[in-house]
Amino acid sequence: MPANDFTTTEYARRLEKTRRAMAERGLKTLVICDPSNMAWLTGYDGWSFYVPQAVILHESGMPMWWGRTQDKPGAALTTWLEADHLFDWPEEHVQHPDHHPFDSLVDLLREYGWVEAIGVEMDNYYFSARSYQILETAFGRDGLADATGLVNWQRAVKSEQELQLMRSAGRLSAHMHGVLRAEFNEGIAKNALVARVQAAGIEGLPDLPGDYPAIAPIAPSGIEASASHITWNDRPLAPGEATYFEISGCVRRYHCPISRTLFLGSPPEDIRRGEAAILQAIEDTFAVAKPGVSCEEVASCVYESFGRAGYIKGSRTGYPVGLSYPPDWGERTMSLRPGDTTKLEENMTFHLMPGLWTPDWGMAITETFVVTPNGGEPLADVPREIVVK
Amino acid sequence: MPANDFTTTEYARRLEKTRRAMAERGLKTLVICDPSNMAWLTGYDGWSFYVPQAVILHESGMPMWWGRTQDKPGAALTTWLEADHLFDWPEEHVQHPDHHPFDSLVDLLREYGWVEAIGVEMDNYYFSARSYQILETAFGRDGLADATGLVNWQRAVKSEQELQLMRSAGRLSAHMHGVLRAEFNEGIAKNALVARVQAAGIEGLPDLPGDYPAIAPIAPSGIEASASHITWNDRPLAPGEATYFEISGCVRRYHCPISRTLFLGSPPEDIRRGEAAILQAIEDTFAVAKPGVSCEEVASCVYESFGRAGYIKGSRTGYPVGLSYPPDWGERTMSLRPGDTTKLEENMTFHLMPGLWTPDWGMAITETFVVTPNGGEPLADVPREIVVK
Repeated sequence: MPANDFTTTEYARRLEKTRRAMAERGLKTLVICDPSNMAWLTGYDGWSFYVPQAVILHESGMPMWWGRTQDKPGAALTTWLEADHLFDWPEEHVQHPDHHPFDSLVDLLREYGWVEAIGVEMDNYYFSARSYQILETAFGRDGLADATGLVNWQRAVKSEQELQLMRSAGRLSAHMHGVLRAEFNEGIAKNALVARVQAAGIEGLPDLPGDYPAIAPIAPSGIEASASHITWNDRPLAPGEATYFEISGCVRRYHCPISRTLFLGSPPEDIRRGEAAILQAIEDTFAVAKPGVSCEEVASCVYESFGRAGYIKGSRTGYPVGLSYPPDWGERTMSLRPGDTTKLEENMTFHLMPGLWTPDWGMAITETFVVTPNGGEPLADVPREIVVK
Repeated sequence: MPANDFTTTEYARRLEKTRRAMAERGLKTLVICDPSNMAWLTGYDGWSFYVPQAVILHESGMPMWWGRTQDKPGAALTTWLEADHLFDWPEEHVQHPDHHPFDSLVDLLREYGWVEAIGVEMDNYYFSARSYQILETAFGRDGLADATGLVNWQRAVKSEQELQLMRSAGRLSAHMHGVLRAEFNEGIAKNALVARVQAAGIEGLPDLPGDYPAIAPIAPSGIEASASHITWNDRPLAPGEATYFEISGCVRRYHCPISRTLFLGSPPEDIRRGEAAILQAIEDTFAVAKPGVSCEEVASCVYESFGRAGYIKGSRTGYPVGLSYPPDWGERTMSLRPGDTTKLEENMTFHLMPGLWTPDWGMAITETFVVTPNGGEPLADVPREIVVK
């Protein structure tokens, strides 16, 4: 049945870590709706997260998958769970104004007597306010606890097998950036360029097929790039504009996001100055990003390099990445920014994001790296300099 | 400032419809977090929905956009709102364990005195249980009301301009299926096929650039197709297997999803029988889908055709589509299924989904149609029969 990528031992270790965190918080049962966490615990994979679904993890026993009837065969195909641990809610609940799939989840939890100390992901795309209210009505506010990020935190340190997948995703990111460098020419419409880059990531390399990344290509040009999250349009690339591409290869749902900036013509002095500050920030970060160093210490490498170049960086400079589903490839735990005193550990992985946004242009040159005893080590090999044509 | 697709008159009409629905429910203020609803009301476009953001619509005045500081320039670029109606929350709130962007939304609502009869989308991906709790703490449970689907319902009947965009999306869907038919051959790896089809949709046609669809291609083969929402892997296409592709062109965020089934070799009798039932169901549906007919009457065309062929169809057979963002291209209002007595109106648009899933295979041949006085009219022109090679 299991068609997944990890050993039984690795899944057992994941459950054990998660249960340790549950015990520390006094939780008996977790209802996990984040598809990344569901996949990490069980291998479940499918574009079914637009309806309610969950992995239910009690303090003992095999986890359960719970979802829509028509997705149960997908759970049988992709998870390591036994068939009698797959549960479904009746089809008539789907997007119905008067009743809700969580009504059936309440029944299931009651059937097992798991009616107290239930952890739920309060701040997650896939656990709605309505879902919360249904559980609250059934089990009382005191029966529930906020377990936002509980599983995400267990995902922070990657196994060797996970790092392998992220390096593979990095090979695809490099391949995509190679296609981007080759095809980036005056007059080509942005959407045509995106199509080719995205196809390169999914077609992949002869031994390395690609999956869909959790974020669509972010690819703004010129003034658009003053906004952080503009995707694309059909405007032909024009001389005198900076364009940045924030893209990621994806292998078995693991990511390695890499941004690069491209310029048609001759980049003005301020853009070159920004570039130098970013390149220095990356080198400085890699030098310090060793186990035991804090997130805010890493961030200060970026702020200081930017400060020396006369730029003020206001936003966080990075976040953990790995296994992910839309709409975000970040793990939403640590942040590389002032105030985050979490200490780095070996084999944590971050997307280092020393982006610069001014009112007139934006530039991003980013790297995904793994924390090693020797510092940050990039997981992809892509030339960092602005691509000038 | 506005870089959007619709006239001022159309936006005014949208606000008016929405405010009528607010008044009927006694709502003074709407906090709209669904990115599709945000876009429909203001034109806002960007992959920023992975952090909290909203359009705030009071019973009078211009709507407000509220989001992350670094996304405010994107709101200025893409919406029709005046600059003084764009509000941002401080960057330090982003994915922070101890404070939350909604803290700042509370301040904003208080500043304007909009502290009661606030409608929120309780059952939506982009309004979390935590966000709800913050508003509840500030304004009391009685200060809030469930406005799930309120704006979605206003989107059901499409304007001429919207239909134009959906027909354009349908041209892209047809183009994508053309590429699929051409490239579908024994031995090609599924991911390679998906890459080419997706690139065709984004590169588009000479006069018609493509956007990213709200759902990644669903493309299962053989036994995988017994599950509804498997995306793809790198397995080469094999003889004797049915594969279905559920894909959509996307133009300025408008969709026209179309599924087709493909077969290498000679389809067995049961698959041919399923195909005949589906094709008949589509014809029957189009004949009855006129204004005044109910959703459940439309659905019965499918159930009856399937019943005559000896298949029992358990799931709903369609849903409204149009403007959308991930993770769903459905509008989540009506459903074509028993019990939904909503009457069709002219220019409503549906994805008719007469899919068949058995324990051994699955098949989907679907159409997106608009309701006209003469019945359902498909918005794309793609041959319906199973593609056999």
